[in-house]
Amino acid sequence: MKLYKSHTTFAGETRFYSHDSECTKTEMNFSVYLPQPGKKPKQAIIWLSGLTCNEKNFVEKSGVQGLLAYGDTMIICPDTSPRGLDLPGEHDHYAFGSGAGFYVNATTEGYKDHYRMYDYVNEEIYNVLKTEFEVPANKISIMGHSMGGHGALIIGLKNPEKYSSISAFAPVVNPINSDWGQKVFTGYLGEDKAAWKSYDACELIKAGAKHPIEILVDQGADDEFYPEQLLTENLQTVCDKQGQALELNLIEDYDHSYYFISSFLEDHIAFHEAQFNML
Amino acid sequence: MKLYKSHTTFAGETRFYSHDSECTKTEMNFSVYLPQPGKKPKQAIIWLSGLTCNEKNFVEKSGVQGLLAYGDTMIICPDTSPRGLDLPGEHDHYAFGSGAGFYVNATTEGYKDHYRMYDYVNEEIYNVLKTEFEVPANKISIMGHSMGGHGALIIGLKNPEKYSSISAFAPVVNPINSDWGQKVFTGYLGEDKAAWKSYDACELIKAGAKHPIEILVDQGADDEFYPEQLLTENLQTVCDKQGQALELNLIEDYDHSYYFISSFLEDHIAFHEAQFNML
Repeated sequence: MKLYKSHTTFAGETRFYSHDSECTKTEMNFSVYLPQPGKKPKQAIIWLSGLTCNEKNFVEKSGVQGLLAYGDTMIICPDTSPRGLDLPGEHDHYAFGSGAGFYVNATTEGYKDHYRMYDYVNEEIYNVLKTEFEVPANKISIMGHSMGGHGALIIGLKNPEKYSSISAFAPVVNPINSDWGQKVFTGYLGEDKAAWKSYDACELIKAGAKHPIEILVDQGADDEFYPEQLLTENLQTVCDKQGQALELNLIEDYDHSYYFISSFLEDHIAFHEAQFNML
Repeated sequence: MKLYKSHTTFAGETRFYSHDSECTKTEMNFSVYLPQPGKKPKQAIIWLSGLTCNEKNFVEKSGVQGLLAYGDTMIICPDTSPRGLDLPGEHDHYAFGSGAGFYVNATTEGYKDHYRMYDYVNEEIYNVLKTEFEVPANKISIMGHSMGGHGALIIGLKNPEKYSSISAFAPVVNPINSDWGQKVFTGYLGEDKAAWKSYDACELIKAGAKHPIEILVDQGADDEFYPEQLLTENLQTVCDKQGQALELNLIEDYDHSYYFISSFLEDHIAFHEAQFNML
């Protein structure tokens, strides 16, 4: 793990690291914010970004540092795909390949050797928090935006014992029924739709996955991808049916951008910290 | 004036406008944040960005919306140069030409017809605030970063009756004695160094320019351009000599980035608002 850049931000440090990933067999970058660099953080939130993003967008645009400053919570923001490869079709479309790992373990030729973003986040980034930053394993939560909201939902729902709470901004909740999801799942997982279901939040809940803590989802009503790509209401329907607690806020006027994320980020931080404080 | 994009942000709106500028004879873009879009703002701050920036950087990266939300202060952020031209040498160097207008009225061939960023900010943007947003003329202040900190200092010092207060992050305070300044002033103003002095904060104060309110300057001690390009201490020296009130904070560990700006922006907003509240 190599620290390649650090910026003092409020009382803490925004840091950029690179490391050789066992999952992706590439060098991967991630960012962190440490509110008190001289002390071990008491707890950590994993942030998963959306399509076209990398490890920088969230720490540059969300204002998260001002919200975490002077507290005990760190945040870690992985990149959204392997980089530096040149697989067939990898750089042709913004919603597939580079910048669009979709937090799955690919099984198709070429992609299966590198596009293992599910394991990368759930195993490798998780272990970086435990071993390198010495965060207690029971005080790690997960959140994300859009494709990253999808990632937070599926990773959290499949591993409720590892993540104390889950939240999402404008998540893709039912990718097997959206254009984005059908495109990427075909590319990463092939034609077998049974395999797709294990990376679909609605299908996971339908099949019995459950998180003990209410899931928080904020969705802007003026989001340019709502409802077609996001299918937000399908999450409410399946949660109601299966008894998964969900706070879904459909908020007038907000769009899909970081302007939306920054407006409600304080609520999400407070949501995760409230859960940490109960542990 | 054409509103081409708007994003709800906190309780207000981040908006992007374009207009045909009389000063630059080009279409110019600017951004604003209106904390209460349905009401006239009571006061306004002009933000001037640094080299390579445009009208977007500050509203995307600083977190300013969270600080202004629910208040009465709007902010306006012009671009840093004309765009869409192809003058000799205009796109060859990051510190000259496009993205680097340096807030002067150029007098050299080619540039003199378009690079009039001093008038653009001090006349045209100022008038947009008064006429389009109906901000009272005595409640407008100015701040900026790096090249934009230089812009805020010279525009504020040359027009103390128009700007209620001046602040800057890591400003270029004495460009006639730095590489950046010598390069751009030669390109925009020619070889006549007397002309350069009228766009140099230290030289203006030396020649008697004065603002009635203490100027606030924050400077990171780990800034990669400090002291060579910024020459910060020269401002302290000349202010002491000429009796210009100055609060200059040299702050350990911070660099030249938006991480630094976001860390201290709340202080600058409070500084300008305190002055507005006295009027």
